[in-house]
Amino acid sequence: MKVVGLMSGTSGDGVDAALVEITRSRKGLDIQTIAFHVLPYPRSLQQRILTASASGSVAEICHLNALLGEWFANAALGAIRTAGLRPKDIDLIGSHGQTVHHLPHGVKDAGVGSIRSTLQIAEPAVIAERTGITTVADFRPRDIAAGGQGAPLTPGVHALVFRHPRRARLVVNLGGISNVTYLPRGKGVGGVSAFDTGPANMVLDGLMYRATNGRVSMDRDGRLASRGKPDGRLLTKLLAHPYLLKQPPKSTGREMFGAPMVEELAAIQEARQLSIETLLATCSRWTAESVGTARRWIQGGIDEVIVGGGGVRNRAIMAHLADVFSPAPVSTFDALGWDSKAFEAVAFAVLAYQTVMEQCGNVPAVTGASHPALLGCIVPGGPGWMRRLKLSS
Amino acid sequence: MKVVGLMSGTSGDGVDAALVEITRSRKGLDIQTIAFHVLPYPRSLQQRILTASASGSVAEICHLNALLGEWFANAALGAIRTAGLRPKDIDLIGSHGQTVHHLPHGVKDAGVGSIRSTLQIAEPAVIAERTGITTVADFRPRDIAAGGQGAPLTPGVHALVFRHPRRARLVVNLGGISNVTYLPRGKGVGGVSAFDTGPANMVLDGLMYRATNGRVSMDRDGRLASRGKPDGRLLTKLLAHPYLLKQPPKSTGREMFGAPMVEELAAIQEARQLSIETLLATCSRWTAESVGTARRWIQGGIDEVIVGGGGVRNRAIMAHLADVFSPAPVSTFDALGWDSKAFEAVAFAVLAYQTVMEQCGNVPAVTGASHPALLGCIVPGGPGWMRRLKLSS
Repeated sequence: MKVVGLMSGTSGDGVDAALVEITRSRKGLDIQTIAFHVLPYPRSLQQRILTASASGSVAEICHLNALLGEWFANAALGAIRTAGLRPKDIDLIGSHGQTVHHLPHGVKDAGVGSIRSTLQIAEPAVIAERTGITTVADFRPRDIAAGGQGAPLTPGVHALVFRHPRRARLVVNLGGISNVTYLPRGKGVGGVSAFDTGPANMVLDGLMYRATNGRVSMDRDGRLASRGKPDGRLLTKLLAHPYLLKQPPKSTGREMFGAPMVEELAAIQEARQLSIETLLATCSRWTAESVGTARRWIQGGIDEVIVGGGGVRNRAIMAHLADVFSPAPVSTFDALGWDSKAFEAVAFAVLAYQTVMEQCGNVPAVTGASHPALLGCIVPGGPGWMRRLKLSS
Repeated sequence: MKVVGLMSGTSGDGVDAALVEITRSRKGLDIQTIAFHVLPYPRSLQQRILTASASGSVAEICHLNALLGEWFANAALGAIRTAGLRPKDIDLIGSHGQTVHHLPHGVKDAGVGSIRSTLQIAEPAVIAERTGITTVADFRPRDIAAGGQGAPLTPGVHALVFRHPRRARLVVNLGGISNVTYLPRGKGVGGVSAFDTGPANMVLDGLMYRATNGRVSMDRDGRLASRGKPDGRLLTKLLAHPYLLKQPPKSTGREMFGAPMVEELAAIQEARQLSIETLLATCSRWTAESVGTARRWIQGGIDEVIVGGGGVRNRAIMAHLADVFSPAPVSTFDALGWDSKAFEAVAFAVLAYQTVMEQCGNVPAVTGASHPALLGCIVPGGPGWMRRLKLSS
């Protein structure tokens, strides 16, 4: 089955589209990435999404839902074109959508107790209409309805593609935030755990942006950080951050490691006259050490660490990770044949495949859901969609 | 197939749930209403929905989407209980959701032209999770994506249940606004047209509410209106309302026949010292005459008028309709075996049935869509949902 996965992260910088071929074999699912396409949002649209996520009006959400549907459809068509294929060659689309709000801890409401909710937009009916391809979307609300946090959803896919019969693996994603999935030896999702470990690119990018007055948005390849040395005093302070000491399940985000943290670090830098190299080196070490805290909470040892996400290109973090997890080898998604940048989009292609195959996509031990659930809503490509997916004869 | 239809109108007063049994016969679909259940919203929730629809924040929409999912699920469970059945006896739910915004005419957006959108909430994943029943929702966005207005969607169902081989019928719905569906003799959706004709209960209820300082919200059974006589001068003025003269396709709502219209009428009433009975009689006649304007736009004669919606209980409007359409007989949904109040909910049960049966639900000539479309998104009740619906073996 040829499936396009569509993903846009909370940074709202564009849509990732991965076209994969999924084949069922005796050994499980065989997943091959055929094409990867990124459709960046213009700066104005990114700003609009970030604003709408914080304080958008119902009219803006209604409009953006349809507008982003067009962007997501175009991203899918882009990936299909990149592969030299046509929409009629594709069986299915899985779209994460654009998260504009996430209230997984519940908001008290008169008479009904606490209501937990999440809101992803990018209208799947627009995606299905523009492409003619059956589209699965809105994966998170069902896990939330089943008592979970609606996130993370990638650990089930990590288990599917990275779990090893004889090696216990820690899968690390270095995104804005760092998160881990622990995969004990064996198969299936039994014993799998996952949580956010703490800071990653969000802090480092924020410091670069601030230091260059917005001219440079990242320390490419971790070059500046590699030139510096971690400051012991600051590192000790950062490692005492309450989030790192908190027992999972736990998740974090921009409110903890975004702008306020960058401002705090910049103030320390100024007071102690630290160089930007020293500051970035310290935060790279902090990132690696916070990933290392995962060992406190997982049940069992780690034979191998596999790193994905934009942070794999940061040589400073990667060197610190090798040091922190030594003697366990630290490898990358890419070394195992997976494009780090494409993985999240691939995951939503796999989740869509699971939904139409009637396989549950969440890992209850990870999200907190009361049971495995069939995730998402299915928007038919058009009449005959079930026959096209070989779901009916 | 046993299907529950869920509907909550723009007045936001509660959820209507109709449980129907749909059987496919040689003659088409046979639809029997088994139970009807109304779950009214508390006044505070109604107010919250109306406020959110006008100016809600993203956080409020995110929260209300999940909260109303619980209300819709409870309404479905209520209808199932009323029928003496259990959720496992039910095959499917069709949920219209709660419209919180509708921008079918398009909003210009830089670089992408005009974007048309609509937003219904009441999370279907919550409905499916609480009931275990596969739920079809979000019917309107696909018609909009296909170039339509996303509304009205009931005309296709009107054609299915009311179309007569030898009698041309005008189906009238007296809701807040009055709308009509014209069904020429014959079968199918060929030649079917539909549009909003103008004012109905929204104006009459508004006048009562204002005249009684909010103590009475409607002129029950049209009693006061029946005691008055239409004022000729005011009626002439009202019949010249530009909306009545506009050629279809056309649709209208609260912005035209809501509060501003009530205020204008109240000012005239005061200036000319008209009694409330006279005012209500005039507006009842106006309602009937505006429905009568349908004859200007439809292609063909009318053998029979069939009236549904809350207004069927208003004897003043019904008497005026009989007069306006004479000699064509004016009958009601109820006289043909359909509960007027339940019909919209029944319609969404039928639309959900059509979607899982891969039948298109919109009438392109009515909505303006470029083609018939398979409407809605399907949220599986759980693993095995396709076998349960006999869609796969």
